[in-house]
Amino acid sequence: MSTPFPSHPKVLAFDTFGTAVDWHSGIAREVQALRPGVDGDAFANAWRDGYKPAMRRVMSGELGWTLIDDLHRIILDQILGPFGLADLSETQKQHLNKVWHRLDPWPDVVAGLTRLKSRYLICTLSNGNIGLLTNMAKRAGLPWDCILSAEVFRAYKPDPATYLGVAQVFDVAPAEVMLVATHQDDLAAARACGLQTAYIERPAEFGAAHPKDVAPNPANTLHAKDFLALADQLGG
Amino acid sequence: MSTPFPSHPKVLAFDTFGTAVDWHSGIAREVQALRPGVDGDAFANAWRDGYKPAMRRVMSGELGWTLIDDLHRIILDQILGPFGLADLSETQKQHLNKVWHRLDPWPDVVAGLTRLKSRYLICTLSNGNIGLLTNMAKRAGLPWDCILSAEVFRAYKPDPATYLGVAQVFDVAPAEVMLVATHQDDLAAARACGLQTAYIERPAEFGAAHPKDVAPNPANTLHAKDFLALADQLGG
Repeated sequence: MSTPFPSHPKVLAFDTFGTAVDWHSGIAREVQALRPGVDGDAFANAWRDGYKPAMRRVMSGELGWTLIDDLHRIILDQILGPFGLADLSETQKQHLNKVWHRLDPWPDVVAGLTRLKSRYLICTLSNGNIGLLTNMAKRAGLPWDCILSAEVFRAYKPDPATYLGVAQVFDVAPAEVMLVATHQDDLAAARACGLQTAYIERPAEFGAAHPKDVAPNPANTLHAKDFLALADQLGG
Repeated sequence: MSTPFPSHPKVLAFDTFGTAVDWHSGIAREVQALRPGVDGDAFANAWRDGYKPAMRRVMSGELGWTLIDDLHRIILDQILGPFGLADLSETQKQHLNKVWHRLDPWPDVVAGLTRLKSRYLICTLSNGNIGLLTNMAKRAGLPWDCILSAEVFRAYKPDPATYLGVAQVFDVAPAEVMLVATHQDDLAAARACGLQTAYIERPAEFGAAHPKDVAPNPANTLHAKDFLALADQLGG
Protein backbone atom coordinates (compact mmCIF):
# COMPACT_ATOMS: atom_id res chain seq x y z
CA MET A 1 0.00 0.00 0.00
CA SER A 2 1.45 3.36 -0.88
CA THR A 3 0.40 6.92 -1.53
CA PRO A 4 2.39 9.19 -3.82
CA PHE A 5 4.17 12.12 -2.19
CA PRO A 6 6.80 14.57 -3.40
CA SER A 7 9.95 12.84 -2.17
CA HIS A 8 10.96 10.66 0.71
CA PRO A 9 11.86 12.71 3.75
CA LYS A 10 15.03 11.90 5.66
CA VAL A 11 13.79 12.90 9.10
CA LEU A 12 10.41 12.21 10.70
CA ALA A 13 9.69 14.58 13.59
CA PHE A 14 6.81 13.51 15.83
CA ASP A 15 4.50 15.50 18.01
CA THR A 16 4.03 13.51 21.22
CA PHE A 17 0.97 14.47 23.36
CA GLY A 18 -2.04 12.99 21.58
CA THR A 19 0.00 11.86 18.58
CA ALA A 20 2.28 9.29 20.22
CA VAL A 21 0.84 8.99 23.72
CA ASP A 22 -2.72 8.93 25.08
CA TRP A 23 -2.66 11.77 27.63
CA HIS A 24 -6.44 11.65 28.24
CA SER A 25 -6.61 8.05 29.47
CA GLY A 26 -3.41 8.29 31.47
CA ILE A 27 -4.47 11.40 33.37
CA ALA A 28 -8.05 10.24 33.91
CA ARG A 29 -6.81 6.90 35.26
CA GLU A 30 -4.29 8.39 37.69
CA VAL A 31 -6.59 11.04 39.12
CA GLN A 32 -9.38 8.51 39.62
CA ALA A 33 -6.96 6.14 41.36
CA LEU A 34 -5.95 9.01 43.64
CA ARG A 35 -9.54 10.11 44.36
CA PRO A 36 -12.22 7.70 43.03
CA GLY A 37 -15.02 10.29 43.06
CA VAL A 38 -13.36 12.66 40.59
CA ASP A 39 -14.59 12.88 36.98
CA GLY A 40 -11.34 11.79 35.34
CA ASP A 41 -12.54 12.58 31.83
CA ALA A 42 -13.42 16.18 32.72
CA PHE A 43 -10.26 16.60 34.82
CA ALA A 44 -7.99 15.45 31.99
CA ASN A 45 -9.64 17.78 29.49
CA ALA A 46 -9.58 20.72 31.91
CA TRP A 47 -5.85 20.27 32.47
CA ARG A 48 -5.20 20.07 28.74
CA ASP A 49 -7.51 23.04 28.06
CA GLY A 50 -5.26 25.18 30.23
CA TYR A 51 -2.29 24.44 28.04
CA LYS A 52 -2.77 26.85 25.14
CA PRO A 53 -3.64 29.86 27.34
CA ALA A 54 -0.58 29.12 29.52
CA MET A 55 1.59 28.80 26.43
CA ARG A 56 0.32 32.13 25.16
CA ARG A 57 1.48 33.75 28.41
CA VAL A 58 5.00 32.54 27.63
CA MET A 59 4.87 33.50 23.96
CA SER A 60 3.55 36.97 24.77
CA GLY A 61 6.37 37.55 27.23
CA GLU A 62 4.05 37.76 30.25
CA LEU A 63 5.85 34.67 31.59
CA GLY A 64 9.57 34.22 30.97
CA TRP A 65 10.82 30.98 29.41
CA THR A 66 8.99 28.25 31.31
CA LEU A 67 9.29 24.47 31.01
CA ILE A 68 6.12 22.46 30.36
CA ASP A 69 6.53 20.75 33.73
CA ASP A 70 6.15 24.18 35.34
CA LEU A 71 3.28 25.23 33.07
CA HIS A 72 1.49 21.99 33.91
CA ARG A 73 1.86 22.80 37.61
CA ILE A 74 0.48 26.33 37.16
CA ILE A 75 -2.61 24.89 35.44
CA LEU A 76 -2.94 22.05 37.95
CA ASP A 77 -3.02 24.52 40.82
CA GLN A 78 -5.91 26.31 39.07
CA ILE A 79 -8.06 23.19 38.62
CA LEU A 80 -7.43 21.35 41.89
CA GLY A 81 -10.01 23.45 43.75
CA PRO A 82 -12.87 23.11 41.24
CA PHE A 83 -12.34 19.32 41.19
CA GLY A 84 -12.31 19.06 45.00
CA LEU A 85 -8.61 18.21 45.15
CA ALA A 86 -7.29 21.25 47.00
CA ASP A 87 -6.45 19.08 49.99
CA LEU A 88 -3.79 17.04 48.21
CA SER A 89 -0.39 17.22 49.90
CA GLU A 90 2.50 18.96 48.15
CA THR A 91 4.09 15.56 47.55
CA GLN A 92 0.86 14.29 45.96
CA LYS A 93 0.62 17.39 43.76
CA GLN A 94 4.22 17.02 42.60
CA HIS A 95 3.64 13.36 41.81
CA LEU A 96 0.38 14.03 39.97
CA ASN A 97 2.03 16.82 37.97
CA LYS A 98 4.51 14.29 36.58
CA VAL A 99 1.72 12.07 35.22
CA TRP A 100 2.66 13.67 31.89
CA HIS A 101 5.94 11.68 32.14
CA ARG A 102 3.99 8.44 32.65
CA LEU A 103 1.63 8.35 29.66
CA ASP A 104 1.09 5.20 27.63
CA PRO A 105 1.63 5.11 23.87
CA TRP A 106 -1.27 4.31 21.55
CA PRO A 107 -1.19 0.58 20.72
CA ASP A 108 0.37 1.04 17.25
CA VAL A 109 3.15 3.40 18.31
CA VAL A 110 6.08 1.22 19.38
CA ALA A 111 5.67 -1.17 16.45
CA GLY A 112 5.14 1.69 14.01
CA LEU A 113 8.15 3.67 15.22
CA THR A 114 10.33 0.57 15.13
CA ARG A 115 9.43 0.03 11.47
CA LEU A 116 9.92 3.69 10.57
CA LYS A 117 13.26 3.85 12.42
CA SER A 118 14.68 1.20 10.09
CA ARG A 119 14.45 3.65 7.19
CA TYR A 120 14.25 7.17 8.64
CA LEU A 121 15.79 9.21 11.41
CA ILE A 122 12.95 9.53 13.95
CA CYS A 123 12.84 12.25 16.59
CA THR A 124 10.36 14.03 18.78
CA LEU A 125 9.40 17.63 18.16
CA SER A 126 7.34 18.45 21.21
CA ASN A 127 6.73 21.36 23.50
CA GLY A 128 7.40 18.92 26.35
CA ASN A 129 10.71 19.47 28.12
CA ILE A 130 13.65 17.14 27.47
CA GLY A 131 13.44 15.43 30.87
CA LEU A 132 9.73 14.75 30.47
CA LEU A 133 10.15 13.34 26.97
CA THR A 134 13.10 11.19 28.05
CA ASN A 135 11.23 9.73 31.03
CA MET A 136 8.20 9.11 28.81
CA ALA A 137 10.28 7.36 26.15
CA LYS A 138 12.18 5.20 28.64
CA ARG A 139 9.01 4.07 30.41
CA ALA A 140 7.00 3.49 27.22
CA GLY A 141 9.83 2.04 25.12
CA LEU A 142 9.62 4.71 22.42
CA PRO A 143 12.72 4.13 20.26
CA TRP A 144 13.52 7.74 19.26
CA ASP A 145 16.87 8.35 17.58
CA CYS A 146 16.89 11.76 19.24
CA ILE A 147 14.70 13.79 21.56
CA LEU A 148 14.16 17.31 20.27
CA SER A 149 12.08 19.68 22.32
CA ALA A 150 11.04 23.29 22.49
CA GLU A 151 13.65 23.37 25.27
CA VAL A 152 16.44 22.85 22.71
CA PHE A 153 15.25 25.76 20.59
CA ARG A 154 14.06 27.97 23.47
CA ALA A 155 10.85 28.45 21.49
CA TYR A 156 7.51 26.69 21.53
CA LYS A 157 5.65 25.32 18.54
CA PRO A 158 4.22 26.89 16.39
CA ASP A 159 7.27 29.21 16.37
CA PRO A 160 9.12 28.63 13.05
CA ALA A 161 12.37 28.30 15.04
CA THR A 162 11.19 24.86 16.15
CA TYR A 163 10.33 23.42 12.72
CA LEU A 164 13.31 24.96 10.97
CA GLY A 165 15.45 23.97 13.94
CA VAL A 166 14.90 20.28 13.17
CA ALA A 167 16.23 20.78 9.64
CA GLN A 168 19.22 22.74 10.94
CA VAL A 169 20.11 20.19 13.63
CA PHE A 170 20.26 17.40 11.05
CA ASP A 171 21.74 19.53 8.25
CA VAL A 172 18.92 18.83 5.80
CA ALA A 173 16.48 21.01 3.84
CA PRO A 174 13.10 21.76 5.46
CA ALA A 175 11.38 19.65 2.77
CA GLU A 176 13.46 16.67 3.89
CA VAL A 177 11.72 16.80 7.28
CA MET A 178 8.18 15.50 7.78
CA LEU A 179 6.20 16.55 10.84
CA VAL A 180 3.86 13.83 12.09
CA ALA A 181 1.02 15.07 14.28
CA THR A 182 -2.65 14.73 15.11
CA HIS A 183 -3.17 18.51 15.25
CA GLN A 184 -3.92 20.43 12.05
CA ASP A 185 -2.64 23.74 13.47
CA ASP A 186 0.76 22.23 14.24
CA LEU A 187 0.94 20.74 10.74
CA ALA A 188 -0.11 24.00 9.09
CA ALA A 189 2.67 25.89 10.87
CA ALA A 190 5.22 23.25 9.80
CA ARG A 191 3.98 23.43 6.21
CA ALA A 192 4.44 27.20 6.21
CA CYS A 193 8.12 26.53 7.00
CA GLY A 194 8.45 24.14 4.05
CA LEU A 195 8.22 20.84 5.91
CA GLN A 196 6.25 17.85 4.65
CA THR A 197 3.36 16.88 6.93
CA ALA A 198 1.54 13.70 7.95
CA TYR A 199 -1.76 13.75 9.87
CA ILE A 200 -2.52 10.91 12.28
CA GLU A 201 -6.18 10.45 13.25
CA ARG A 202 -6.37 9.63 17.01
CA PRO A 203 -10.16 10.17 17.17
CA ALA A 204 -10.22 9.42 20.93
CA GLU A 205 -7.56 11.97 21.85
CA PHE A 206 -10.02 13.82 24.13
CA GLY A 207 -11.70 10.63 25.37
CA ALA A 208 -14.16 8.22 23.79
CA ALA A 209 -17.02 10.54 24.84
CA HIS A 210 -15.61 13.42 22.79
CA PRO A 211 -14.75 12.11 19.30
CA LYS A 212 -12.45 14.42 17.34
CA ASP A 213 -12.99 15.50 13.73
CA VAL A 214 -10.35 13.53 11.84
CA ALA A 215 -11.34 14.53 8.32
CA PRO A 216 -8.41 14.63 5.89
CA ASN A 217 -6.93 17.99 4.94
CA PRO A 218 -5.58 17.73 1.39
CA ALA A 219 -2.85 20.22 2.26
CA ASN A 220 -1.05 17.51 4.22
CA THR A 221 1.44 15.31 2.40
CA LEU A 222 0.05 12.17 4.02
CA HIS A 223 -3.00 11.16 6.08
CA ALA A 224 -2.81 7.96 8.13
CA LYS A 225 -4.99 6.23 10.69
CA ASP A 226 -2.00 5.42 12.88
CA PHE A 227 1.79 4.87 12.85
CA LEU A 228 1.49 1.43 11.22
CA ALA A 229 -0.51 2.91 8.35
CA LEU A 230 2.12 5.66 8.11
CA ALA A 231 4.84 3.02 7.87
CA ASP A 232 2.85 1.32 5.11
CA GLN A 233 2.76 4.59 3.18
CA LEU A 234 6.36 5.61 3.83
CA GLY A 235 7.80 2.18 3.17
CA GLY A 236 9.30 1.67 6.63
CA MET B 1 31.98 -7.62 41.83
CA SER B 2 31.29 -4.22 43.33
CA THR B 3 33.15 -1.18 44.58
CA PRO B 4 31.71 1.01 47.30
CA PHE B 5 30.66 4.52 46.29
CA PRO B 6 28.61 7.22 47.97
CA SER B 7 25.21 6.50 46.51
CA HIS B 8 23.79 5.17 43.28
CA PRO B 9 23.44 7.90 40.68
CA LYS B 10 20.20 8.17 38.71
CA VAL B 11 21.71 9.49 35.51
CA LEU B 12 24.88 8.39 33.74
CA ALA B 13 26.17 11.05 31.33
CA PHE B 14 28.80 9.81 28.87
CA ASP B 15 31.53 11.62 27.07
CA THR B 16 31.63 10.23 23.52
CA PHE B 17 34.86 10.88 21.55
CA GLY B 18 37.44 8.47 22.96
CA THR B 19 35.15 7.27 25.74
CA ALA B 20 32.40 5.61 23.69
CA VAL B 21 33.82 5.66 20.17
CA ASP B 22 37.30 5.09 18.73
CA TRP B 23 37.94 8.29 16.78
CA HIS B 24 41.59 7.47 16.08
CA SER B 25 41.01 4.22 14.20
CA GLY B 26 37.98 5.53 12.35
CA ILE B 27 39.72 8.62 11.03
CA ALA B 28 42.98 6.83 10.21
CA ARG B 29 41.08 4.16 8.30
CA GLU B 30 38.98 6.58 6.24
CA VAL B 31 41.83 8.89 5.28
CA GLN B 32 44.02 5.96 4.26
CA ALA B 33 41.18 4.52 2.18
CA LEU B 34 40.87 7.92 0.49
CA ARG B 35 44.63 8.34 -0.08
CA PRO B 36 46.69 5.21 0.71
CA GLY B 37 49.98 7.09 1.11
CA VAL B 38 48.84 9.26 4.02
CA ASP B 39 50.00 8.53 7.57
CA GLY B 40 46.55 7.89 9.05
CA ASP B 41 47.82 7.72 12.61
CA ALA B 42 49.48 11.14 12.39
CA PHE B 43 46.54 12.62 10.47
CA ALA B 44 43.99 11.49 13.09
CA ASN B 45 46.06 12.90 15.94
CA ALA B 46 46.73 16.18 14.11
CA TRP B 47 42.98 16.66 13.56
CA ARG B 48 42.20 15.92 17.20
CA ASP B 49 45.12 18.13 18.37
CA GLY B 50 43.43 21.08 16.68
CA TYR B 51 40.31 20.59 18.77
CA LYS B 52 41.24 22.25 22.05
CA PRO B 53 42.78 25.36 20.44
CA ALA B 54 39.69 25.72 18.22
CA MET B 55 37.43 25.31 21.24
CA ARG B 56 39.39 27.99 23.09
CA ARG B 57 38.67 30.40 20.22
CA VAL B 58 34.96 29.86 20.83
CA MET B 59 35.20 30.07 24.61
CA SER B 60 37.26 33.27 24.44
CA GLY B 61 34.67 34.87 22.18
CA GLU B 62 37.05 35.15 19.20
CA LEU B 63 34.65 32.85 17.34
CA GLY B 64 30.90 33.07 17.93
CA TRP B 65 28.97 29.94 18.90
CA THR B 66 30.21 27.30 16.47
CA LEU B 67 29.10 23.69 16.07
CA ILE B 68 31.73 20.96 16.27
CA ASP B 69 31.03 20.05 12.65
CA ASP B 70 32.18 23.54 11.70
CA LEU B 71 35.16 23.52 14.07
CA HIS B 72 36.22 20.17 12.59
CA ARG B 73 36.12 21.73 9.13
CA ILE B 74 38.24 24.71 10.20
CA ILE B 75 40.89 22.33 11.56
CA LEU B 76 40.64 20.01 8.56
CA ASP B 77 41.33 22.90 6.21
CA GLN B 78 44.50 23.65 8.21
CA ILE B 79 45.92 20.12 8.02
CA LEU B 80 44.98 19.09 4.47
CA GLY B 81 47.99 20.92 2.98
CA PRO B 82 50.65 19.50 5.33
CA PHE B 83 49.32 15.98 4.69
CA GLY B 84 49.31 16.42 0.91
CA LEU B 85 45.52 16.44 0.67
CA ALA B 86 44.91 19.99 -0.55
CA ASP B 87 43.69 18.66 -3.89
CA LEU B 88 40.61 16.96 -2.45
CA SER B 89 37.37 18.18 -4.02
CA GLU B 90 34.90 20.15 -1.91
CA THR B 91 32.59 17.11 -1.93
CA GLN B 92 35.42 14.90 -0.67
CA LYS B 93 36.29 17.41 2.05
CA GLN B 94 32.66 17.61 3.21
CA HIS B 95 32.41 13.82 3.28
CA LEU B 96 35.71 13.43 5.15
CA ASN B 97 34.65 16.08 7.67
CA LYS B 98 31.67 13.95 8.60
CA VAL B 99 33.87 10.96 9.45
CA TRP B 100 33.22 12.06 13.06
CA HIS B 101 29.60 10.92 12.50
CA ARG B 102 30.82 7.48 11.37
CA LEU B 103 33.04 6.33 14.23
CA ASP B 104 32.82 2.81 15.62
CA PRO B 105 32.20 2.15 19.30
CA TRP B 106 34.81 0.32 21.37
CA PRO B 107 33.90 -3.40 21.50
CA ASP B 108 32.39 -3.26 25.03
CA VAL B 109 30.22 -0.19 24.48
CA VAL B 110 26.91 -1.45 23.08
CA ALA B 111 26.72 -4.39 25.50
CA GLY B 112 27.80 -2.21 28.43
CA LEU B 113 25.32 0.57 27.67
CA THR B 114 22.52 -1.94 27.22
CA ARG B 115 23.20 -3.34 30.70
CA LEU B 116 23.50 0.11 32.29
CA LYS B 117 20.32 1.33 30.55
CA SER B 118 18.31 -1.33 32.37
CA ARG B 119 19.02 0.42 35.67
CA TYR B 120 20.00 4.02 34.90
CA LEU B 121 19.00 6.82 32.59
CA ILE B 122 21.89 6.99 30.11
CA CYS B 123 22.66 10.07 28.01
CA THR B 124 25.52 11.64 26.15
CA LEU B 125 27.23 14.76 27.41
CA SER B 126 29.48 15.66 24.53
CA ASN B 127 30.76 18.75 22.81
CA GLY B 128 29.63 17.10 19.56
CA ASN B 129 26.56 18.67 18.00
CA ILE B 130 23.16 16.96 18.26
CA GLY B 131 23.07 15.91 14.60
CA LEU B 132 26.53 14.39 14.78
CA LEU B 133 25.74 12.47 17.98
CA THR B 134 22.42 11.24 16.56
CA ASN B 135 23.98 9.99 13.33
CA MET B 136 26.75 8.34 15.34
CA ALA B 137 24.28 6.62 17.66
CA LYS B 138 22.03 5.43 14.85
CA ARG B 139 24.92 3.97 12.84
CA ALA B 140 26.67 2.39 15.81
CA GLY B 141 23.55 1.23 17.67
CA LEU B 142 24.28 3.24 20.82
CA PRO B 143 21.07 2.95 22.90
CA TRP B 144 21.07 6.39 24.57
CA ASP B 145 17.89 7.40 26.40
CA CYS B 146 18.64 10.98 25.40
CA ILE B 147 21.29 12.88 23.46
CA LEU B 148 22.56 15.89 25.37
CA SER B 149 25.15 18.09 23.76
CA ALA B 150 26.94 21.36 24.25
CA GLU B 151 24.47 22.53 21.59
CA VAL B 152 21.59 22.15 24.07
CA PHE B 153 23.33 24.28 26.67
CA ARG B 154 25.03 26.68 24.24
CA ALA B 155 28.22 26.07 26.21
CA TYR B 156 31.10 23.66 25.76
CA LYS B 157 32.54 21.38 28.41
CA PRO B 158 34.24 22.18 30.78
CA ASP B 159 31.76 25.05 31.30
CA PRO B 160 29.78 24.29 34.49
CA ALA B 161 26.57 25.05 32.54
CA THR B 162 27.00 21.70 30.78
CA TYR B 163 27.47 19.49 33.86
CA LEU B 164 24.86 21.29 35.93
CA GLY B 165 22.60 21.37 32.88
CA VAL B 166 22.32 17.57 32.92
CA ALA B 167 21.05 17.66 36.51
CA GLN B 168 18.59 20.44 35.66
CA VAL B 169 17.23 18.69 32.57
CA PHE B 170 16.42 15.57 34.57
CA ASP B 171 15.38 17.42 37.75
CA VAL B 172 17.92 15.67 39.98
CA ALA B 173 20.73 16.85 42.26
CA PRO B 174 24.23 17.15 40.73
CA ALA B 175 25.40 14.26 42.95
CA GLU B 176 22.73 12.06 41.32
CA VAL B 177 24.54 12.44 37.98
CA MET B 178 27.72 10.51 37.18
CA LEU B 179 29.94 11.67 34.33
CA VAL B 180 31.67 8.78 32.55
CA ALA B 181 34.76 9.78 30.57
CA THR B 182 38.27 8.80 29.64
CA HIS B 183 39.61 12.33 30.19
CA GLN B 184 40.69 13.41 33.68
CA ASP B 185 40.19 17.12 32.93
CA ASP B 186 36.56 16.56 31.96
CA LEU B 187 35.98 14.52 35.12
CA ALA B 188 37.68 17.11 37.33
CA ALA B 189 35.41 19.84 35.99
CA ALA B 190 32.33 17.69 36.60
CA ARG B 191 33.50 16.90 40.12
CA ALA B 192 33.88 20.62 40.84
CA CYS B 193 30.15 20.91 40.01
CA GLY B 194 29.24 18.16 42.47
CA LEU B 195 28.80 15.29 40.02
CA GLN B 196 30.05 11.76 40.65
CA THR B 197 32.71 10.63 38.17
CA ALA B 198 33.81 7.38 36.54
CA TYR B 199 37.08 7.08 34.62
CA ILE B 200 37.26 4.64 31.69
CA GLU B 201 40.74 3.58 30.58
CA ARG B 202 40.83 3.48 26.74
CA PRO B 203 44.65 3.19 26.60
CA ALA B 204 44.64 3.15 22.77
CA GLU B 205 42.61 6.35 22.39
CA PHE B 206 45.47 8.02 20.45
CA GLY B 207 46.43 4.83 18.62
CA ALA B 208 48.29 1.70 19.67
CA ALA B 209 51.60 3.48 19.02
CA HIS B 210 50.80 6.16 21.60
CA PRO B 211 49.61 4.46 24.79
CA LYS B 212 47.84 6.80 27.19
CA ASP B 213 48.51 7.05 30.94
CA VAL B 214 45.46 5.36 32.47
CA ALA B 215 46.57 5.46 36.11
CA PRO B 216 43.66 5.74 38.55
CA ASN B 217 42.94 9.10 40.15
CA PRO B 218 41.50 8.47 43.62
CA ALA B 219 39.39 11.63 43.27
CA ASN B 220 37.08 9.76 40.87
CA THR B 221 34.13 7.87 42.31
CA LEU B 222 34.85 4.85 40.10
CA HIS B 223 37.64 3.62 37.81
CA ALA B 224 36.81 0.97 35.21
CA LYS B 225 38.62 -0.68 32.34
CA ASP B 226 35.58 -0.40 30.09
CA PHE B 227 31.75 -0.10 30.11
CA LEU B 228 31.25 -3.76 31.04
CA ALA B 229 33.46 -3.32 34.09
CA LEU B 230 31.49 -0.16 34.90
CA ALA B 231 28.25 -2.14 34.70
CA ASP B 232 29.78 -4.73 37.05
CA GLN B 233 30.54 -1.97 39.55
CA LEU B 234 27.26 -0.09 39.20
CA GLY B 235 25.09 -3.19 39.20
CA GLY B 236 23.62 -2.68 35.74
